[in-house]
Amino acid sequence: MVLPPLSLDRTAGSLSRQLYDGLRVAILAGQFRVGTRMPSTRALAASLDVSRNTVHQAFEQLILEGLLEGRQGAGTFVAEMPRGIPIGPGAGELSEPRGRRLLSQQGRAIRDVAAKWPEPIQLPGESRGRAFGMGAPADLFPTSVWRRLLGQCWDALSRARGLGRAEHEPLREAIAEHLGTTRGVRCTPDQVIVVSGSQQGIALTATVLLDPDDSVWVEDPGYFGAHTAFVGWGARVVPVAVDDEGLSVEVGQRRAADAKLAHVTPTHQFPLGKTMPLRRRAELLAWAQAADAWILEEDYDSEFRYSGAPLAALQGIDPNQRVIYLGSFSKSMYSGLRMAYLVVPRDLAPAFRAARQVVGGPPPVLEQAVVARFLSEGHLDRHLRRMRRVYAQRQRCLAESVGEQLDGLLRVEPDETGMHLVGWLRAGVSAEEVCRRAAAEGLELLPLSSYRARAGPEGVLLGFSEVDERALRHGVSLLRKALV
Amino acid sequence: MVLPPLSLDRTAGSLSRQLYDGLRVAILAGQFRVGTRMPSTRALAASLDVSRNTVHQAFEQLILEGLLEGRQGAGTFVAEMPRGIPIGPGAGELSEPRGRRLLSQQGRAIRDVAAKWPEPIQLPGESRGRAFGMGAPADLFPTSVWRRLLGQCWDALSRARGLGRAEHEPLREAIAEHLGTTRGVRCTPDQVIVVSGSQQGIALTATVLLDPDDSVWVEDPGYFGAHTAFVGWGARVVPVAVDDEGLSVEVGQRRAADAKLAHVTPTHQFPLGKTMPLRRRAELLAWAQAADAWILEEDYDSEFRYSGAPLAALQGIDPNQRVIYLGSFSKSMYSGLRMAYLVVPRDLAPAFRAARQVVGGPPPVLEQAVVARFLSEGHLDRHLRRMRRVYAQRQRCLAESVGEQLDGLLRVEPDETGMHLVGWLRAGVSAEEVCRRAAAEGLELLPLSSYRARAGPEGVLLGFSEVDERALRHGVSLLRKALV
Repeated sequence: MVLPPLSLDRTAGSLSRQLYDGLRVAILAGQFRVGTRMPSTRALAASLDVSRNTVHQAFEQLILEGLLEGRQGAGTFVAEMPRGIPIGPGAGELSEPRGRRLLSQQGRAIRDVAAKWPEPIQLPGESRGRAFGMGAPADLFPTSVWRRLLGQCWDALSRARGLGRAEHEPLREAIAEHLGTTRGVRCTPDQVIVVSGSQQGIALTATVLLDPDDSVWVEDPGYFGAHTAFVGWGARVVPVAVDDEGLSVEVGQRRAADAKLAHVTPTHQFPLGKTMPLRRRAELLAWAQAADAWILEEDYDSEFRYSGAPLAALQGIDPNQRVIYLGSFSKSMYSGLRMAYLVVPRDLAPAFRAARQVVGGPPPVLEQAVVARFLSEGHLDRHLRRMRRVYAQRQRCLAESVGEQLDGLLRVEPDETGMHLVGWLRAGVSAEEVCRRAAAEGLELLPLSSYRARAGPEGVLLGFSEVDERALRHGVSLLRKALV
Repeated sequence: MVLPPLSLDRTAGSLSRQLYDGLRVAILAGQFRVGTRMPSTRALAASLDVSRNTVHQAFEQLILEGLLEGRQGAGTFVAEMPRGIPIGPGAGELSEPRGRRLLSQQGRAIRDVAAKWPEPIQLPGESRGRAFGMGAPADLFPTSVWRRLLGQCWDALSRARGLGRAEHEPLREAIAEHLGTTRGVRCTPDQVIVVSGSQQGIALTATVLLDPDDSVWVEDPGYFGAHTAFVGWGARVVPVAVDDEGLSVEVGQRRAADAKLAHVTPTHQFPLGKTMPLRRRAELLAWAQAADAWILEEDYDSEFRYSGAPLAALQGIDPNQRVIYLGSFSKSMYSGLRMAYLVVPRDLAPAFRAARQVVGGPPPVLEQAVVARFLSEGHLDRHLRRMRRVYAQRQRCLAESVGEQLDGLLRVEPDETGMHLVGWLRAGVSAEEVCRRAAAEGLELLPLSSYRARAGPEGVLLGFSEVDERALRHGVSLLRKALV
């Protein structure tokens, strides 16, 4: 037989592996006919200048995989391939798949709803230091503290043989403690379910509590990620108008009194920024109790209230345990951390815990340990105190710059919480058009319409958290070009 | 009015926060009647020996939350509570929830199936160093290499402002490369979906490909986690007998020819350890193509083959792109890492990617970066080479000890792959009973029946990976007591 050119690279790892790969590809590609006798291991070893053992190992592997067969005393032969295994020229290529390629209903719903997710803005060139992102500023996170905790926690887990553990108990204790003192959340550690980001928290809630076709109230305008998770789950999403007091319970009851769940952001409505007053909270809780429904309270940027302490959570005043509380470390720490937490009513905790185990599992144990220390040693409190001051200044700077430079073109109202302001446009101006033109100037701007189910006054979301005051002022001057 | 005892702790953070907390609890607990006039800020400040501003901040907060109301010129009063907000004695306590507390069908299915998950074995006292766990040994992982990479990756991500990123591209490239050279998997990086553990990979596959009531073939005996994920999803789970060549396609076709998915472990069947030969692989692929069905190939401990290279994956010989490949770093790195990966057919990649975004999201960016470096710098290959040697020795030790000490009581057959052996019991001996008695000796043993849908010969799973040869030998001698 003529061997195909087998080029072995002595610097690239196991030679027998390379030989195996070369022979395998050649056999599958049909370069050897079925029944062809392979050269002896001695001959092949000599011709390739490798040891016989190297060849032997490669042959053994191919025999195990059924591509070669050894016949007692007669040598090694190319085996007959079962039907269905691709051989012949081009066997290494993937053909166009044939047959039906069916996704599930859920699979199709998710693919379709994800296609409507607002496109990430493509900024020309380098986007660092450009306004108006809404994320945590990369340069103000206490990275050296975190780095130290990483090393310490890694060592401690290694020593205690804790790297195989899934759940780090001290984290749930630290979260329960933190939420109790800063958010008025009433819970014990066993009610805390640590998850890999808010989306997983929302998806878990849908899994445990919603049947397909159940109705869910979502705020309009509201957080698109929640919307997609519910649509992806197959629920009937009912957008409910938001007024100055947050989600309108009256409108919700008119549109779908029998909804099974309401997703709300009562502390600081996203994206409009209003706070739900006590009266409205009571109305929402009363509806949930009467309707046997649940409330998913998303409390994502409550930490960033600049005057006074943050408003306490809805969860803490619910006498009926109808509230599932969802918080995240994406904004208070950093978003690549991918960690969030649910606080669930005590009687639902076993089902939520099982659901997380069956569909996902907790975040890595190292991150759990680091976050636990970051909380319990007071680093988060310190970081939040600092960021509140910084964000308050940045917001003031943004509002002043808009007032000075964009008077008559764009209107913003100061807010006591959060990481963005809504910039309201003059009537007749298209927010999409403004955002497109702003992107050409390197500005990260999103139209309010991306978060709306029904038309309303046009506006844009102006994040002030990510960059410093100089960049914000420069951003406002660039924004002027997009507005006139 | 008489104020409730408000004890402020000057060493415990914000005084105004403490004052707010105390007043809030007192108001909600009904210690102040509606309409009660609060003391003036001056009087309260003096009585508590704090600044007026401290009191002012606490009042502001309570006014914002609707618990107090300021009346122009008249002072601050306890506001009327909306109906539904708990006030009165015991308001701080949670009452027993009333009304219906409905879980979804899925929520109930998951809670019920999780209850059947084999209980973690409760070992008396300290369990370290006890046989017969099946995990990665905590003391042989290159923890100092990992620690160095943690620091380097953290610094690099911080500098590049990469802590806000969700996806770390080099990881998908490193995984595609690794799978191509070591597992014969054919894929490009965009087919790789990094997930938070195998369970999430299975759950994502179910979400994208299965409608409730679709049939799924699972191996019997087989991996219980897959079983629970499919049941939790609402699929109809069809256990299919395993013979010496792995899952019996013939039995599967007889029981549910129209199944939508088959979950298989062709490289090293879990838990019996057989390898699926080429002929059976071709039969399975042909069925999938004819039935428009999918194959979920779980390749969890393929790295630990002691002689020769691991058998190549099913994915690499499928001409029709019907295989979803699932691998994990739990055994090859450490299980608290919580990272696994899917390789999906090219045309399904957008739906899988969307599903991961909507229901979960990727693991933390730091872990992604560290794993990428661990792979691309060759640390994984080195670690696997070492562990193969170690596991081969440990398996040999286990088999020899069993042969010497348990002859006639327990039978094991050597295996070329994996981290456990099946110990077959004499007829009439109850595996559950043996496991219970072994646990009393501090041994971590699971009955084969935990992984079976239908009765079969009784056996126990004997992990040999976690502890050293001395502990294994000692374990075997303790096991004798449980067998006689």
